[in-house]
Amino acid sequence: MMENKRFLLFFSLALALGFLSIVLVLIWVLHFREGLGWDGGSAEFNWHPLLMLIGFVFLQGIAILVYRLPWTWKCSKQKMKFIHAGLNVLAFIIAVISLVAVFDFHNAQNIPNMYSLHSWVGLAAVILYSAQIVMGITVFLIPATPVYVRAALMPVHIYSGLFIFTSVIATALMGITEKLIFALKNPAYKDSPPEAILVNVLGLLIVAFGGLVLWIATRPSWKRPKEQVTQTLIDSSMGPEDMKVGAATRSDPESSVETRRRNGKTEESE
Amino acid sequence: MMENKRFLLFFSLALALGFLSIVLVLIWVLHFREGLGWDGGSAEFNWHPLLMLIGFVFLQGIAILVYRLPWTWKCSKQKMKFIHAGLNVLAFIIAVISLVAVFDFHNAQNIPNMYSLHSWVGLAAVILYSAQIVMGITVFLIPATPVYVRAALMPVHIYSGLFIFTSVIATALMGITEKLIFALKNPAYKDSPPEAILVNVLGLLIVAFGGLVLWIATRPSWKRPKEQVTQTLIDSSMGPEDMKVGAATRSDPESSVETRRRNGKTEESE
Repeated sequence: MMENKRFLLFFSLALALGFLSIVLVLIWVLHFREGLGWDGGSAEFNWHPLLMLIGFVFLQGIAILVYRLPWTWKCSKQKMKFIHAGLNVLAFIIAVISLVAVFDFHNAQNIPNMYSLHSWVGLAAVILYSAQIVMGITVFLIPATPVYVRAALMPVHIYSGLFIFTSVIATALMGITEKLIFALKNPAYKDSPPEAILVNVLGLLIVAFGGLVLWIATRPSWKRPKEQVTQTLIDSSMGPEDMKVGAATRSDPESSVETRRRNGKTEESE
Repeated sequence: MMENKRFLLFFSLALALGFLSIVLVLIWVLHFREGLGWDGGSAEFNWHPLLMLIGFVFLQGIAILVYRLPWTWKCSKQKMKFIHAGLNVLAFIIAVISLVAVFDFHNAQNIPNMYSLHSWVGLAAVILYSAQIVMGITVFLIPATPVYVRAALMPVHIYSGLFIFTSVIATALMGITEKLIFALKNPAYKDSPPEAILVNVLGLLIVAFGGLVLWIATRPSWKRPKEQVTQTLIDSSMGPEDMKVGAATRSDPESSVETRRRNGKTEESE
């Protein structure tokens, strides 16, 4: 219970920082910049930071933490996997739309694509993210995948998920740096006008959000308890549908005691 | 043994990427830029990326991994702690010299200090790093600190160490972005001259180095075995000096079985 309260404190703080970042990026593009549009100009570019922050930073962060929410522990693991996968697919779609906006803007303005370190690391993150989603669905959602394959790949899935999330945040910081240098002229970035301060603060909020997500995701005591799934199914009076879920759950590597013991050494450490 | 070989493969790869990054930054400042000097000009600035990469990225990464080296497992934990602390202090000193170079350059050139997100995140990382070193020495090196304090703070120490290291890498990527935009004119950064490609590759190498360090540091099976310390002391014929070390080791949270059991849930997960 104490642990639940501490989790809720940290999770609420992460949510608050995430929402505050979205508010700041909206103030940035709507008040300081040219607003939002789809005209090949700056208003089209502005979808890029807004959508990346909402999809690739915020939604991906929430998708990482979805198993940690105590009120979901009575739901089946399979259902939570669908929510985890669904949120990540949604974040991916938003990131792709955000990429279309910036490529379209570059092409309309005759600015070369893919020359900056921001674009290199960012594109690598998008490609790795799509591979992570395909791999995740194939290995952990499709029931045919053998338990030992799931167990072997779980530490890789967890590590690469956190690595991609962190790379996305680093990419956002590079993007902010680029945009403030290019957009602020007279006063320039180095003269610290209000817009520069606001967006620097946005950068710090994104770092703090990322740090909180990584802290929450790596606390072993905040993990979804593995027994509870089976316990809930036994406690409730099962219909035939529940029985099927119960059977599926038992063959699932994350809820099988044997696999848990086998996994313990490698899996518990993320 | 298999695990040792896999560790060695990953560790050698991290070392190779680290050395290659240092070679690339040297090519950058010596061949493409103005070389190294201490004259208030660009040659003084160039110490900043070079020393940050050597100290704050490479040495800090090695300091994080020092407990993982199998050939150090016969050394006492206390000795390894001194090496870990020493490498971090050395990295800190190099980072401070690197900061002096850039502040001195800015002042000589009448460029404002501390206006960019790079400088904000970077200074936060330096301040957190100094706090982490002071906290680390106070809590884990001074024998007077009670075992329960050490046990409670170990997960925080591990997390904040990895968080600071990651923030430093993100800061390096922002620094590269800034410098390429400011320094490359005609051809500009967007025209992708050879210097831009070289330094973008340097950025990717730094990300790969960071990713490898984080992977190695978070593999539970690659951790220093906790029993071995005591075992070695029992195996060797102990003099009175060894007895003292043995006693000190036993009161150490990381080698006490009771504490290990208590810690297990929280500590094993980093």
